[in-house]
This record gives sequence, C-alpha cells and structure tokens, in this order.
Amino acid sequence: MKRRALIVETRHGHVCANAGVDFSNVEDGYITLLPVDPDASARKIREELGQIIGVKPAVIITDTWGRARRLGQVDFAIGVAGMSPFRDYRGEQDMMGHTLHVTNIAVVDELAAAAELVKGKAEGVPVVLVRGYDYPEGDGRASDLIRPIEEDLFR
Amino acid sequence: MKRRALIVETRHGHVCANAGVDFSNVEDGYITLLPVDPDASARKIREELGQIIGVKPAVIITDTWGRARRLGQVDFAIGVAGMSPFRDYRGEQDMMGHTLHVTNIAVVDELAAAAELVKGKAEGVPVVLVRGYDYPEGDGRASDLIRPIEEDLFR
Repeated sequence: MKRRALIVETRHGHVCANAGVDFSNVEDGYITLLPVDPDASARKIREELGQIIGVKPAVIITDTWGRARRLGQVDFAIGVAGMSPFRDYRGEQDMMGHTLHVTNIAVVDELAAAAELVKGKAEGVPVVLVRGYDYPEGDGRASDLIRPIEEDLFR
Repeated sequence: MKRRALIVETRHGHVCANAGVDFSNVEDGYITLLPVDPDASARKIREELGQIIGVKPAVIITDTWGRARRLGQVDFAIGVAGMSPFRDYRGEQDMMGHTLHVTNIAVVDELAAAAELVKGKAEGVPVVLVRGYDYPEGDGRASDLIRPIEEDLFR
C-alpha cells in the first residue's frame, strides 16, 4: 500500500507533508514536538554560544520536511538567527547584464539540506558545523520563509 | 507589490512555483527551456564522462525551484543518473531500536541544494563536483521523485 501524504500547517505556519510530531529517536511512551518558537530557540542558542565561546555564529534549526507533490524528505530551516534566510539576487545583473527579478535563494533551507547529508537520521549527530560559507548578513527569521496562501496561484 | 507565485507542473511532472522558462543568463531574444528528458541527459553525461575520464560519477542535473507556500527558491534535482535519489531508512532502526516507517530522504535534492550554495546564480559556475559523499547506490531517476497528486491529502 502506498502511504499517502497529509499536507499540514504547523502552528508556526510552515506547510509540509506529514509533519508535527515524531516518534523516532525517543523512548517508548514519548514523542518529540516541534519547538514552540524555533526562531527564539535559534536566537537563544546563538546568544549562549556567544557567552560560552566568545563567537556568535549564525544558527539554523532544521527539521525533516515532507513536500507536497514530491516524494522523499529533505531538511529545511524552521529556526534562524544571525543571518538573512535569503541570498537575494533581485536587482542584480546576470551574466548578460539583464536585471534579475525573481531569484531570491532560500539559502537557510539549502544549508539545512546540506547539513542533513552529514548528520543523517539515526547516527546521533545533532549538530553540524558549516564552515567556509559566506552567508548573507541580516537578522532574519525562519518565519520570513512562510508564503501566505493567498500568494499561491494553483491552476 | 507582492509577486504572486504560479504553481505549475512541468512536462516531466515536476510541480513547482514559477518554473519552466528562464530569461536570465542568455542573450536577448533567447530563453532557456528545461531539458526535454533531464534523466536521459544525466545518463548521457555520465556515459560520456566514463568514456573521456574512465570514471562514471553519479550525475545530478539541478534547477532552481520555487515552492508552494514557502518563499525563496532552492535548487532541486530534475535529472539523475548512477545513484538512487533516496537514502531510504524505512525498515531500519532508530537510536532507540524503533523501526523507522516514513524516513526516506531525497538526497539528490539535498545534494542539488548544497551545490547551489557553491555555484551561485550569475557567477558562471555550471558544474559542482561533490566529493566524499557516500551516495546510495542504484539506477534511479529524478522522475522517481514525482508524487502523484492523488497521494497528497490537503485539508
């Protein structure tokens, strides 16, 4: 039997397939809920790291993400602190000198996805340190990624 | 004015926001279409690399991907050759010994997303070489990622 995907919206406004609670990697009788405010959690981790190690890295909290109309999951960002979620190319010129009008890359989702390749699912690796990436500066939130449904035009 | 997202299905069956043709990075009067059969293109690239360099790497053809209900774009896979698109954890045990029932990671999409962070959009870098990743063996296609709409349950 094919497993159907239930498209759900988390309390934070993120829309994904089969999300919300997780029975894996916790003891019997327990489930893992999503953080109440993952952006606030990311800010707290960033501040506390700053106090402990003297450096405040950008922090991304990730979760495994099912997608509508696409099989398999990828990790995306649910919490962000210390960087912009986007590398915004709009207004810049492409290689032919044309102005880019749409391209606004959700680099926090790409970083989350890249980290999953290293972290895996059941290997007990909770944190990935990303080095060498020149991330876009800013004070963004993962909630900035949420597109209001009225902006989506389905056929 | 907020730009609205048109949710479209490509001729290959991939569903994304604002996809299909690209006016950027090509000369005036031209547009870039998607490959007719990106999985076949990936297989061809893989075979020809094998003939030229004596090694047949897994090949992923990527495209910038707008998402329903989520702002910004990420790169995902539209063509795959020489690997499985998925790292399938289903049937394996988590850290507590529970069997995983859902987790099936679309690693080709995560690799595509990771590559975008290196490649950028207007820097003239068309190819990214991924090293050190133990990719899932198989003979998969990006078309394996397409979830039939009847499997999605929207509220």
